[in-house]
Amino acid sequence: MSIKNLNLKKYIIGPNTPIETTKGFIPRVYFNNSATTLILKPAMKKFFNLLPIYTYINVPPSNSKYITTMYEETRNVILEMVGADANRDVAIFTKNSTEAMNVLADVYLEADPEQVVLSTTMEHLANYLPYKARMQTELIAIGKNGNIDLEDYVLKLEKYQGKVKLVAVTGASNITGVVPPYYEMARLAHQYGAKIFVDIVQVIQHLPFTMKPHGYDEHIDFVAFSAHKAYSGLDGGALVGPYDVLEKYLPLDFGSGITQFIDSSKIIYDNPPQKYETGYPDVLGVITMSKALQFLKKVGLDNIAKYERKLYKYLLYRMEEVPDITIYDSHSPFVHIPYISFSLKGIHFKTVAAKLGLDHGIEIGNGTLGADLYVQFLLGLSNEEAYECYKSGMGYGVNRVSLGMYNTFEEIDVFIHALKEIALSTR
Amino acid sequence: MSIKNLNLKKYIIGPNTPIETTKGFIPRVYFNNSATTLILKPAMKKFFNLLPIYTYINVPPSNSKYITTMYEETRNVILEMVGADANRDVAIFTKNSTEAMNVLADVYLEADPEQVVLSTTMEHLANYLPYKARMQTELIAIGKNGNIDLEDYVLKLEKYQGKVKLVAVTGASNITGVVPPYYEMARLAHQYGAKIFVDIVQVIQHLPFTMKPHGYDEHIDFVAFSAHKAYSGLDGGALVGPYDVLEKYLPLDFGSGITQFIDSSKIIYDNPPQKYETGYPDVLGVITMSKALQFLKKVGLDNIAKYERKLYKYLLYRMEEVPDITIYDSHSPFVHIPYISFSLKGIHFKTVAAKLGLDHGIEIGNGTLGADLYVQFLLGLSNEEAYECYKSGMGYGVNRVSLGMYNTFEEIDVFIHALKEIALSTR
Repeated sequence: MSIKNLNLKKYIIGPNTPIETTKGFIPRVYFNNSATTLILKPAMKKFFNLLPIYTYINVPPSNSKYITTMYEETRNVILEMVGADANRDVAIFTKNSTEAMNVLADVYLEADPEQVVLSTTMEHLANYLPYKARMQTELIAIGKNGNIDLEDYVLKLEKYQGKVKLVAVTGASNITGVVPPYYEMARLAHQYGAKIFVDIVQVIQHLPFTMKPHGYDEHIDFVAFSAHKAYSGLDGGALVGPYDVLEKYLPLDFGSGITQFIDSSKIIYDNPPQKYETGYPDVLGVITMSKALQFLKKVGLDNIAKYERKLYKYLLYRMEEVPDITIYDSHSPFVHIPYISFSLKGIHFKTVAAKLGLDHGIEIGNGTLGADLYVQFLLGLSNEEAYECYKSGMGYGVNRVSLGMYNTFEEIDVFIHALKEIALSTR
Repeated sequence: MSIKNLNLKKYIIGPNTPIETTKGFIPRVYFNNSATTLILKPAMKKFFNLLPIYTYINVPPSNSKYITTMYEETRNVILEMVGADANRDVAIFTKNSTEAMNVLADVYLEADPEQVVLSTTMEHLANYLPYKARMQTELIAIGKNGNIDLEDYVLKLEKYQGKVKLVAVTGASNITGVVPPYYEMARLAHQYGAKIFVDIVQVIQHLPFTMKPHGYDEHIDFVAFSAHKAYSGLDGGALVGPYDVLEKYLPLDFGSGITQFIDSSKIIYDNPPQKYETGYPDVLGVITMSKALQFLKKVGLDNIAKYERKLYKYLLYRMEEVPDITIYDSHSPFVHIPYISFSLKGIHFKTVAAKLGLDHGIEIGNGTLGADLYVQFLLGLSNEEAYECYKSGMGYGVNRVSLGMYNTFEEIDVFIHALKEIALSTR
């Protein structure tokens, strides 16, 4: 397969759908893949084909058996995709990655409410607030190199020694695409008796990833991701982690399907993953997710990563032509997913996004994008300054371009042309 | 519109899809609507039409505005559908009704961990375990008339006076279709200073329902339901309740989108519903749900209820022809949704369901169906006997036929024919 052009647009629904702009209907350019990717045709085809035989799982007729099998096999698709150990790890279906991290936080809260969780300043709030709201949670700083400050990390591991049971870090920033040294962090976490969770919601669709084998110093203990960021368009996601930990605790949500037996005086909970999956088994969401993940695997995450790397380099090269632009962490050696956050001097981030969207049909992200603390750091805002921005109603934020495997060099040209027009319009 | 035959099958995807049975491919008969309904074509058509313009909510381009508007308007569709007060109530999007009840339980736990929740023996576990796992939860008994024992209810309200803040009751049993006297229960709950939650997951698709106005004795304070049981096929649901209660507490899940401001030392949470909706806004699920609900409204829940009533009466009449059948709560004046649970003497419930499915292509429910305590009660099993069934591996349970608005008299005939064959085969 040619890496120069993966030519995947034909597998995507509506990558260039004409949308209404101030200049009439023009084909959209979708550069907001970090928020949610567009949807894979093969995944939707699977979805369509399921509709006439749609039914509940685990009931007798033949179509339910077929559906149940696909539903359950999705666990193996996921475990294989993240390099988990099917004998020791379990894939729990969740609504999305945020729910997965709340389940994880709840498990750790149950294990020890007095513990200290280490998260980082680079996180999306989904990998910070679930812990922060439940337990003492300390933020590892960002160092001068723009990545996680390993010295600060070790200082905190030392300071809270014996109390740190969980380290939570992103697999790639949703703002800058910076990839933290999570294997090195895993090694250190394990040295200090902690387990490590890596939020791979921005990784699974962009880069080859592995949890590495159990027992390895660099083994990743838990991961989570969302289907809708991996080209499925639907609710769905998973928490993957060790069975022997998860079997010890209670779920975050209670209801039907999580007990082996219950009467008015006794409750015998089921084992993972069932114990953590009460309520409706999201048949269509899970099987569609499975198909999307299988497509990514078939194309090859290494091929996707190589192609997106070329796109990213070209995007960066072209963005540097734009007058009065500030690019955050440009040329950082740690950027490995095709996301670029930037500001245009003198133009509010909402205005930049609005002009790109409403005048040019180009969709990008803007604001704090769920990573408020990191964006605050990138913009160099103190807590007081950030709060002033909030109180004034202006807010603070960045603009973000986030590419996907189907985006093209031509789309980047269209974007650069528009961005230059906007940058020059205020001169 | 003729009530004799609503003729809605043409709006449903695959109500009679040929499925493989021991007798070859035969058109299926779907009688498991309580577990999940089949899917409305108009809802799926909306879903299909959204795909080419799929994007995130609240970003600038025109298609996002269109999608955001439909997403947010779904709240009004829901509020109107359940007779809520748009000025005082709020619709929180959830994964499903189980999640909604966990959110509610978590709110009440936060308000007072020492309180006593009153639930009932008739409940699906989703309306019992979320409270039971978090707080002291007492079960209101079932009376001799087969419905909630109001004397026992008052006794418990008296016994735990001042400690009961929440009464949780189903709007209709998923096993027998019995409708509890929830307005009367609301009146009593309010007299004792408690609020009432009614689980309308089996109501919203079958019966006209209203929460009645705030201030009325019979006002229902909270309700919840799931989209997939209301013909959408997708994840999605809602918790509806008073803003002034929900604004006081923290959500069950934490992450992005629930704060107005956050820095390393300060968190200002957003208001409901946003505070309770962290993570991915399930664009496709929510809008598809909206379309499904609007379809039900257009047909008219009164029309649906009348037609389903006729179906139910015919089903009951025909089932009584079947030899050695036990029908639970047959001829109860409280049955108002078209569900019938039964047992065939001498044939295990799994065998009945398997034969119907694998030999006749008829899908029904079997087992405890998430309402373990109620099924145990209906079967007259003591805790010890139920536990023996569990330990022996045989389990205990019923068979359940649950009809939907698109099912027909002809399908009932097919079912009765098959059921008689099964009943006679063991003689």
